[in-house]
Amino acid sequence: MQQPLLISSLLEHAERHHGDQQIVSRRVEGDLHRQSFAQLAQRARRLANALAACRVAGGSRVATLAWNGHRHLELYFAVSGSGAVLHTLNPRLHADQLAWIVEHAEDEVLCFDAGFLPLVEAIAPRVRTVRHYVVMTDRAHMPAATSIDGLLCYEDLLAAQDDRYVWPQLDENTASSLCYTSGTTGHPKGVLYSHRSTLLHTYAAALPDALNCSARDAILPVVPMFHVNAWGLPYIACMVGAKLVFPGPALDGASLHALIESEQVTLSAGVPTVWQGLLAHVEGRDLRFSSMRRTVVGGAACPPSMTRAFQQRHDVQVVHAWGMTELSPLGTVCSFKGRHDALDASQREALQARQGRAVFGIDMKIVGDDGAELPWDGRASGELLVRGPWVVSRYLNGDAGDPLVADEQGRRWFPTGDVATIDPDGYMQITDRAKDVIKSGGEWIGSIDIENIAMAHPDVVQAACIAVPHPKWDERPLLVVVRKPGARLTRDDMLAFFAGKIAKWWTPDDVVFVDAIPLGATGKVLKSRLRETYRGHRLPGA
Amino acid sequence: MQQPLLISSLLEHAERHHGDQQIVSRRVEGDLHRQSFAQLAQRARRLANALAACRVAGGSRVATLAWNGHRHLELYFAVSGSGAVLHTLNPRLHADQLAWIVEHAEDEVLCFDAGFLPLVEAIAPRVRTVRHYVVMTDRAHMPAATSIDGLLCYEDLLAAQDDRYVWPQLDENTASSLCYTSGTTGHPKGVLYSHRSTLLHTYAAALPDALNCSARDAILPVVPMFHVNAWGLPYIACMVGAKLVFPGPALDGASLHALIESEQVTLSAGVPTVWQGLLAHVEGRDLRFSSMRRTVVGGAACPPSMTRAFQQRHDVQVVHAWGMTELSPLGTVCSFKGRHDALDASQREALQARQGRAVFGIDMKIVGDDGAELPWDGRASGELLVRGPWVVSRYLNGDAGDPLVADEQGRRWFPTGDVATIDPDGYMQITDRAKDVIKSGGEWIGSIDIENIAMAHPDVVQAACIAVPHPKWDERPLLVVVRKPGARLTRDDMLAFFAGKIAKWWTPDDVVFVDAIPLGATGKVLKSRLRETYRGHRLPGA
Repeated sequence: MQQPLLISSLLEHAERHHGDQQIVSRRVEGDLHRQSFAQLAQRARRLANALAACRVAGGSRVATLAWNGHRHLELYFAVSGSGAVLHTLNPRLHADQLAWIVEHAEDEVLCFDAGFLPLVEAIAPRVRTVRHYVVMTDRAHMPAATSIDGLLCYEDLLAAQDDRYVWPQLDENTASSLCYTSGTTGHPKGVLYSHRSTLLHTYAAALPDALNCSARDAILPVVPMFHVNAWGLPYIACMVGAKLVFPGPALDGASLHALIESEQVTLSAGVPTVWQGLLAHVEGRDLRFSSMRRTVVGGAACPPSMTRAFQQRHDVQVVHAWGMTELSPLGTVCSFKGRHDALDASQREALQARQGRAVFGIDMKIVGDDGAELPWDGRASGELLVRGPWVVSRYLNGDAGDPLVADEQGRRWFPTGDVATIDPDGYMQITDRAKDVIKSGGEWIGSIDIENIAMAHPDVVQAACIAVPHPKWDERPLLVVVRKPGARLTRDDMLAFFAGKIAKWWTPDDVVFVDAIPLGATGKVLKSRLRETYRGHRLPGA
Repeated sequence: MQQPLLISSLLEHAERHHGDQQIVSRRVEGDLHRQSFAQLAQRARRLANALAACRVAGGSRVATLAWNGHRHLELYFAVSGSGAVLHTLNPRLHADQLAWIVEHAEDEVLCFDAGFLPLVEAIAPRVRTVRHYVVMTDRAHMPAATSIDGLLCYEDLLAAQDDRYVWPQLDENTASSLCYTSGTTGHPKGVLYSHRSTLLHTYAAALPDALNCSARDAILPVVPMFHVNAWGLPYIACMVGAKLVFPGPALDGASLHALIESEQVTLSAGVPTVWQGLLAHVEGRDLRFSSMRRTVVGGAACPPSMTRAFQQRHDVQVVHAWGMTELSPLGTVCSFKGRHDALDASQREALQARQGRAVFGIDMKIVGDDGAELPWDGRASGELLVRGPWVVSRYLNGDAGDPLVADEQGRRWFPTGDVATIDPDGYMQITDRAKDVIKSGGEWIGSIDIENIAMAHPDVVQAACIAVPHPKWDERPLLVVVRKPGARLTRDDMLAFFAGKIAKWWTPDDVVFVDAIPLGATGKVLKSRLRETYRGHRLPGA
């Protein structure tokens, strides 16, 4: 019974039990490529031999910069399966940030889609750890000219190898893959997953009340494979024998709808913005989904209007989920309990605005400022803490110290940085980011509500509400505002605008006007820098 | 990420996330008892304190002799959760065998339903290890008189304790429960499960293509909790938050149908003989199932006629499964692949005669006499071998030595003792028991076919076909027959009866007539004893 939980066993299972199941990929080259799980397994074994030939040892990092497709999938299994660490890079980051991450992760090989050559050429001069650059294409599509010496061709590497390879029986706690969090403060932090954490996450995520995946599904992961392993779907598909459909870089509504229909996709997964594009395309042309039954929405809260559009107009069930890079990523899924059969459609949609119940393996709680657990009454709001066998216990290289906090029983919890409520049935709903909450006189003020009101004023371009130290109340809200060019909005006008829209004690104590609000690399407001700037701001009456 | 996989976490999850979900038990006392998962957790904590008060230490064995009900479930969690080992005894065994098993397992506490008092009184004088006998009832239902000194009352034990108890953070490889195989030869052998193996089995068994369990299910485990943990359903219900319905000792068709309807059961599980009783009751009265959608059939092959009755007449999907005590028990489940949507009802029923595909975690293969793997072509038949994280690696106390066999890659497989075919889609079908197969000239002869033909002769009461050593063919079949009283059936008559019904070389070489065929404790033919008796039998022409 001591058999280890290994990623290679997912591939072996898929080959033996679902060898003829299909993997369909819209490729960077433009074609629609098809291979079976048996072919995937053969090519992954060739690739494992190629990695060995490139002297990639156990624990070595192999980076990818690629869209969703079969070669990326082959790397998932060959790299992790052979004992190395798959490091998925986010091509949407700036070259500076990518160069820093590649150096920090000590990536030795970088495999990338041909379209990312300019980005890689920008990074390469600045990184010293990478020994090999591999273009994930065939000889015919190799770039004609490049500044990178000795650029390798993925298909050539495979063609040079034998497809016999025996996956090593690793310790299940061996690191398998690496993903960096896109924190808005300081440097990104690396989260290492292990074979064990990945397998347990895969079991839990495939359960009926989670993503509910079976051999009868055709799964379209629109969520990129560089976003926390496409939420685990590549692993899940191998575990259950589901067809996989990869969209490549074509994430517009027209391309997605065509692929969903031609490949008879039953389950898709992505962020709300992608679905907005898909719905806009479909509704503008009165199109239908003939096979799609469910869509997983995560990465950001799913607007109720989107849930309604999918469910009422298209008979596609929305599966609202919440997770984090630090959780592999799945934490909660909004699936119904038996009692909810009695609800009408609008009541069910209201429930679906919540991020849902913890999947088995994850335990969660909300705590107040003093760390004491708050009740699950659907009203009390506190920081969300989680624990479980796929929750991170430390960042790569021990960066940022020990992230966990212990409770009175010695159990160690990961503070998610999210603020949430939990209702009596265990349905969690995110209400804010913890670091942005303003703690006034022992009560919490949510910054998002205040900003939404301010931004509704016709003279306001942008607004950010932050906490400023206060001698009596500990913290009070300060509103930072960018006015429209030429607008004469005053502090008193702004504060008067809150009257009747919010509890009086939530109204900011002061307003400052600025020319611009600092933004991070991913477009989020850098509230940490604002707090630093205004920590000495003297509030009226303080 | 190093959090151990523990049975107590199932209970904690059920309490926190599904605290008001119901457990309904038809009790030995005759009532229909209801409690919530929150109450289960509270009572399990009381029971854990009671076990500590009885000086039950980590690793100690606590035996049960009980039907399916809430107190048995409380023992499941309190015993394993506290670090002791739950040993479920089969009350259908003879007192001699039970006494041997209790001594062999070194059980320290024996908890039993009041109805089993006579059986326990028969065992008690012969076992020295048991320190406490506990009747699983309340004070009002305690037996008035008994030969057992200091008989304890379960409800009194609980009432004396506090419901605060912190489950220990055990090593996940700690033994959690114990079940004996009912082998037909030699002594029964103990199979120990661990917390880890139980949790992994629970994840895999709940998957959509396995038993497909969700919080919307109401699960009726008709399979006893002393049969390999009721196939894992008590653990699954806690993992997914499903309602549990326990039938107690009332397994007749009328009782089961009434319970299924009153509790709106959606999923049931049991052996074919129980379902025969249920179907006979339902069809004789033109009754219907208003809520039941699926029924899991295992423990013996499900006859196609039963599959048809459930599916065509009652719209209840049959889930044919195969497992063993040595596998916790689940190995394969017959669920469809996408391609099977194209089959008609009779083709789907034919497929459902197979025991199905391996659930993820279990790998399987069939091997010939030389140990070489046989093809998955649906025709080649060989011994079924399995491996996986919930497959036994040794029996309790090392009984019977090392049961595993290694392949050329050093992977260790458990020989199941079953002979099977596997088709190209990975659907396995059991065709015989390995030890009963007759190996003639390098080919295998299945004994079951020969016996079925012999027993179709009007003069035959019982027949058993066994292998006898042969100088040229290694083994040839010998038929052992019990004639009807007064029948004059001769050897030549019997052999002539096979003409045209079977391949000529499958026809037995000889027939012997006996007064009785030896049977084991569970009613199966003791072929091992027959082979011993006839090993020197001189076959004609040998």
